[in-house]
Amino acid sequence: MNLKERKEIIDEKLKNFLSEQEYERKDIEEIFDRLPRFILRGGKRIRPSLFLEGYKIGGGEKIDECLEASLLMELWHNSLLIFDDMMDRDDKRRGGKTIHKSLKDQIDESTAVSHAINVGEYTHTVSIQALARTNFPEEKKYRIIEEQTKWQKKAQQGQALDLILHRKPLQEIETSEVLKMYELKTASYTVIAPLKSGYLLSPEENEKTEKLEKYGKEIGKAFQIKDDLLGLFGKEEETGKPVTSDMEEGKRTLPLIIAYKNSSKGKKETLKSIIGKKSTKKDLKKVREIVEKTGAKRKSENLAKKKIKNSKEISEKLNSDSLSEIEEFVIERDY
Amino acid sequence: MNLKERKEIIDEKLKNFLSEQEYERKDIEEIFDRLPRFILRGGKRIRPSLFLEGYKIGGGEKIDECLEASLLMELWHNSLLIFDDMMDRDDKRRGGKTIHKSLKDQIDESTAVSHAINVGEYTHTVSIQALARTNFPEEKKYRIIEEQTKWQKKAQQGQALDLILHRKPLQEIETSEVLKMYELKTASYTVIAPLKSGYLLSPEENEKTEKLEKYGKEIGKAFQIKDDLLGLFGKEEETGKPVTSDMEEGKRTLPLIIAYKNSSKGKKETLKSIIGKKSTKKDLKKVREIVEKTGAKRKSENLAKKKIKNSKEISEKLNSDSLSEIEEFVIERDY
Repeated sequence: MNLKERKEIIDEKLKNFLSEQEYERKDIEEIFDRLPRFILRGGKRIRPSLFLEGYKIGGGEKIDECLEASLLMELWHNSLLIFDDMMDRDDKRRGGKTIHKSLKDQIDESTAVSHAINVGEYTHTVSIQALARTNFPEEKKYRIIEEQTKWQKKAQQGQALDLILHRKPLQEIETSEVLKMYELKTASYTVIAPLKSGYLLSPEENEKTEKLEKYGKEIGKAFQIKDDLLGLFGKEEETGKPVTSDMEEGKRTLPLIIAYKNSSKGKKETLKSIIGKKSTKKDLKKVREIVEKTGAKRKSENLAKKKIKNSKEISEKLNSDSLSEIEEFVIERDY
Repeated sequence: MNLKERKEIIDEKLKNFLSEQEYERKDIEEIFDRLPRFILRGGKRIRPSLFLEGYKIGGGEKIDECLEASLLMELWHNSLLIFDDMMDRDDKRRGGKTIHKSLKDQIDESTAVSHAINVGEYTHTVSIQALARTNFPEEKKYRIIEEQTKWQKKAQQGQALDLILHRKPLQEIETSEVLKMYELKTASYTVIAPLKSGYLLSPEENEKTEKLEKYGKEIGKAFQIKDDLLGLFGKEEETGKPVTSDMEEGKRTLPLIIAYKNSSKGKKETLKSIIGKKSTKKDLKKVREIVEKTGAKRKSENLAKKKIKNSKEISEKLNSDSLSEIEEFVIERDY
């Protein structure tokens, strides 16, 4: 079962689960009903796929039931996306409106943000219910929830660091800080949490946890670096968000920080004058040029490749076909 | 052990638990460090007390360990307070700054709100860890987490309804809608969730769940009505927030809606012109007068009393001394 086939099954399960939710009143339902639309509109389902992979690495054989449980990961992820979009003031996600934006188009901004926070919280709550309704033993499900809290805390600290770096002037940011943020924010919750949680659900549950964490740290960072490169060099049709949005938000990405460090005084000023402000296509062209000419693009790509190589060394020992598919995906992805 | 003695023990445990939290970097710690200050500055610890009560009703005897587990309830509550304060744009809570306000005084509003959302999420995450680190059997802890999701969903729907009613003109709001909101928002998470969760931790765990839910619905609504009356007639020194804040936020409280329904056309206009706007002491006096003269104050008090009477009938059968103390507290409270 390749990534695309998995995605189809997961989407079907997500759809069913979300359509089963009941609400006390029609007007309440109208608020929460934008959640299934938001979730089902797109998404790669990387996290539930990794969850299944962890399960299979531990010798798990109840594939369908495991995919039911894997909704936990996708729903938690979507809860974070809802918060993230609010924090970044992003209006688009997966080619459609973000939750807070779809609300803002109907009601005042303050109420829209309040509802969006609440929908984000709700998504977190139902993520646990998605796991709870499966037939796995309670002590396994409990172990997973406990494990989640560990990675949630990392992700929350990563989120705080992201916000802290965001306010730091470009010249004061070290690449090591950006990589720390990637480790906490992306690697923890995109790779380590799903892989380890799936593994904890399997019959094995112990032996390989350390390897899985190491693997996740490496490929998680590669995934984020690739994400940043796509955020700057990708196409809107494929990424589902405007190409200038990372720049306008002033995201402290690895390619950007490397480019800044390797720029002349003049180019440093150019970057400072563009990043974090409303930008034009011309600005985008300028930034792309600087990131390419300073070698920051190549360096970032090389670092991502190196991290994928490190990941491969671990995944070969783990004897997993699907992990190599995920590695390929991280290398090749254009969305 | 009366409410005050319980509060002291719970505060000590909260303090210890929060001081054990570790962070990846100093700058991250500085963000999250406002959480213990916020939590420990005040609070009645009603929810952990009810959690203990549920446990005792089910014949639980590990009192100290149960109070450790009860931090779950207090931390979850604080997570909701952080979100609530943001949504209501309240700057004060428990006689000090709210989380988002303390951040806003140091950094730009947008970053402050983002950090506050993140701290709120974090508080939710550690609430589960507070339960997880206790020595109760895993299946009991699991059962509690599963139970929590049920009441969390109610509370989230209640929050949505609160926001919906908030935008409805006063003349379109029915008292039954306000009471529904109280049931979902307050009764669920202030009384039912703690009582039932504590009970699920006890050796008994089954027989009395229905009674506890009924009890919670009644006293929970009484608690909220009393809260609304304090929000209008209380003293800032005791409630820890400005007396005009409920009015200024435009809260759709039971006393207000009853008063509106029983007002002359002129007074209706007065209420509409004051509620939801920055208000003076004179405005407060006017609203207080209307709520008193229309009998809305008395009617609200009577309804709260009736609900407490209903609660008493149930708690007598449950054979619990401490529940009657909590009933007394709801009647007598001035903070």
